[in-house]
Amino acid sequence: MDYDTLFQAQLDDLKAEGNYRIFAELERRCGTYPRATSYEGGGTSEVTVWCSNDYLGMGQHPDVVGAMVEVAQTCGTGAGGTRNISGTNHHHLLLEREIADLHDKEDALLFTSGYVSNWAALGTLGARLPGAVILSDALNHASMIEGIRHSRAEKRIWRHNDPEDLNRHLSALAADVPKIVAFESVYSMDGDIAPIDEIVDVAEAHGAMTYLDEVHAVGMYGPRGGGVAEERGLMDRITLIEGTLGKAFGCFGGYISGSAALCDFIRSFSSGFIFTTALPPAVAAAARTSIAHLKTSHQERARQRAQVAKLRARLDAMGIPHLPNPSHIIPVMIKDPVKCRQISDTLMHDFGIYVQPINYPTVPKGTERLRITPGPLHSDADIDHFAQALNSLWRQCALARAVA
Amino acid sequence: MDYDTLFQAQLDDLKAEGNYRIFAELERRCGTYPRATSYEGGGTSEVTVWCSNDYLGMGQHPDVVGAMVEVAQTCGTGAGGTRNISGTNHHHLLLEREIADLHDKEDALLFTSGYVSNWAALGTLGARLPGAVILSDALNHASMIEGIRHSRAEKRIWRHNDPEDLNRHLSALAADVPKIVAFESVYSMDGDIAPIDEIVDVAEAHGAMTYLDEVHAVGMYGPRGGGVAEERGLMDRITLIEGTLGKAFGCFGGYISGSAALCDFIRSFSSGFIFTTALPPAVAAAARTSIAHLKTSHQERARQRAQVAKLRARLDAMGIPHLPNPSHIIPVMIKDPVKCRQISDTLMHDFGIYVQPINYPTVPKGTERLRITPGPLHSDADIDHFAQALNSLWRQCALARAVA
Ligand SMILES: Cc1ncc(COP(=O)(O)O)c(C=O)c1O
Ligand SMILES: Cc1ncc(COP(=O)(O)O)c(C=O)c1O
Repeated sequence: MDYDTLFQAQLDDLKAEGNYRIFAELERRCGTYPRATSYEGGGTSEVTVWCSNDYLGMGQHPDVVGAMVEVAQTCGTGAGGTRNISGTNHHHLLLEREIADLHDKEDALLFTSGYVSNWAALGTLGARLPGAVILSDALNHASMIEGIRHSRAEKRIWRHNDPEDLNRHLSALAADVPKIVAFESVYSMDGDIAPIDEIVDVAEAHGAMTYLDEVHAVGMYGPRGGGVAEERGLMDRITLIEGTLGKAFGCFGGYISGSAALCDFIRSFSSGFIFTTALPPAVAAAARTSIAHLKTSHQERARQRAQVAKLRARLDAMGIPHLPNPSHIIPVMIKDPVKCRQISDTLMHDFGIYVQPINYPTVPKGTERLRITPGPLHSDADIDHFAQALNSLWRQCALARAVA
Repeated sequence: MDYDTLFQAQLDDLKAEGNYRIFAELERRCGTYPRATSYEGGGTSEVTVWCSNDYLGMGQHPDVVGAMVEVAQTCGTGAGGTRNISGTNHHHLLLEREIADLHDKEDALLFTSGYVSNWAALGTLGARLPGAVILSDALNHASMIEGIRHSRAEKRIWRHNDPEDLNRHLSALAADVPKIVAFESVYSMDGDIAPIDEIVDVAEAHGAMTYLDEVHAVGMYGPRGGGVAEERGLMDRITLIEGTLGKAFGCFGGYISGSAALCDFIRSFSSGFIFTTALPPAVAAAARTSIAHLKTSHQERARQRAQVAKLRARLDAMGIPHLPNPSHIIPVMIKDPVKCRQISDTLMHDFGIYVQPINYPTVPKGTERLRITPGPLHSDADIDHFAQALNSLWRQCALARAVA
């Protein structure tokens, strides 16, 4: 049996479809975000990054970098074990307390990533609450889907952001069945935001617990960066809030936050929490510093919103269609993987602009797009340059313009 | 429905069995490993850690710490995205090349942890090779088991470290069925080592690919720290080698290494690789420095072996029974969760010695143990202190002694 031939055949199919992925090799430059060094094509060149999920540039904040450096120097580079076997560091507990405070919950639990936190928490809840049914929004992230699948609990998919459909599904379940309503606040590929209040109303009416992924919202929304649920005054009605330390907080890792019993339950039974080396203490310290900073500093969020609004206005003025949404994410739909890659390549080579083409499996085939995330560190000149680049591309490629 | 009550009931069961886990809160002290600050009981005290998986103390090596500090200062704290969407950093590629070289393979692929690398790679191989059967050693790690389960491929469990039983299972499968033989080199809880040569012979005879978890062996065995397969001259006969950056390398993260087609296949199709923020570049740089160091430096491994041998000899002399094995892991069997916790507590409080009690689900109930990992940084005086502490405990608690 020639396994490499089997692998290659499936890779060739991807290539034929235009869905084969080429990663851009970058070196982010601390102090000059969103500038980075690109290693494409052998040499190096300077690019401006327009698709980072370090939404606020916190990954280069001097206090955040300083915390990482300091704790690397005092505690070393790794945790040295799983949380149970010598790997729990003082800095993990400080971070868990910071997160619990952020979401105004009794406790929080760290994971090695947001992906693992979703997979492990939903996997454990679904598997260990006898007879549990998980009600999952149709557009939930891969990590939630895998966690639900892993739990082997019964799963019902409700129409995206549709509380009425959720209500129909919940009404069909007996009162004594444990129910978990799993959804996101900001959906990262379309940038739409869930009607959290209505979803919570429905869930509460049926005695369901609520599981909210705020991965693209923590640090970004709410007076202290607690997410959309904080902004809307709904945090106390959400049973479990899940988040990442790798996007707006600019670091790495994931977490859940909720009641003490809930966190202890996941801590005690979840394979994905138990059987893995804990996060480096230096990463935990950096993340805590970032969270603490964004609890009181509003300028990053304010400036980011201003830059998003400016770019949107420019796109509108030029008639370049983008999905309307109330969030910080600007999706420009291309709807073809080959064209999407070409535009991205041209932006990179002719304009020094890096926006990764988003294709299957991240989005459904036929909905390929550029996903643009302006940040507080993009200058007005950057926005101008980017808008002009897109404009000239749209002219060259005869791409559709929005009807004025 | 009161969910907290449901959670609490299961936690109460754990407590009643003596299996509820209490994590030791530590602060590792760079420069004075294996010393750490313990935060138990409100105050702080100094302890000596005897159960770390930073087996060689590389987490405090000045070059490793220096690399983390330097790259945090030049690239910032986070990668800023998934590998596909702005998160691939130059330092990730340098690390992947270093790993491929370590295992003498065409390529390597980084994951956020060893757990995720097993889960994602086995999950993807099992799911995407049509009709694949995974032949899994009976004592494989939770991360492999979950990956196999996730793949939904047919699974056959062969008797632990028994190539004959593997042969029987393989013989029952048709020649045209893709077969994956999944096993570990060093099994971390008993410290026994697989007969890799015989397993590879059997696998090759049946056209099966081999998947070897060297998590507890990389950095530790082989002339360049490539693992047990390197030590035994078998690396080129293993299809896929999986490892961690979080144990002997002293950092964080996981990987696979194999042919270019294999790595590209997992890279292109694996949910657990695709949908998650990439490792911090500073962590990647630290790990690369550690791997490179252990490729040419032998003193850490030599000194570690010497200290393991010394402690074993002391235990033997005192008649304290420990599982015999050819590895660096010394399991002292207690076989009762409550007693195991008591011994661990006494070591901590009376002797300043930290060895976590190992209980269910990490080991089967009734096989609770102390798992001791002497390192190159434990002095002879540390070994002496530890041996005397155990001796006095064995006297006090009337624990069984080995028959001389
Ligand atoms: C909605 C959502 N949840 C979870 C994750 C995973 O978080 P992390 O990157 O920390 O693994 C992501 C993306 O990475 C995401 O988009
Ligand atoms: C055999 C084995 N494989 C994989 C892992 C997971 O590696 P990591 O800690 O990097 O997640 C572990 C332990 O943590 C392990 O013992």
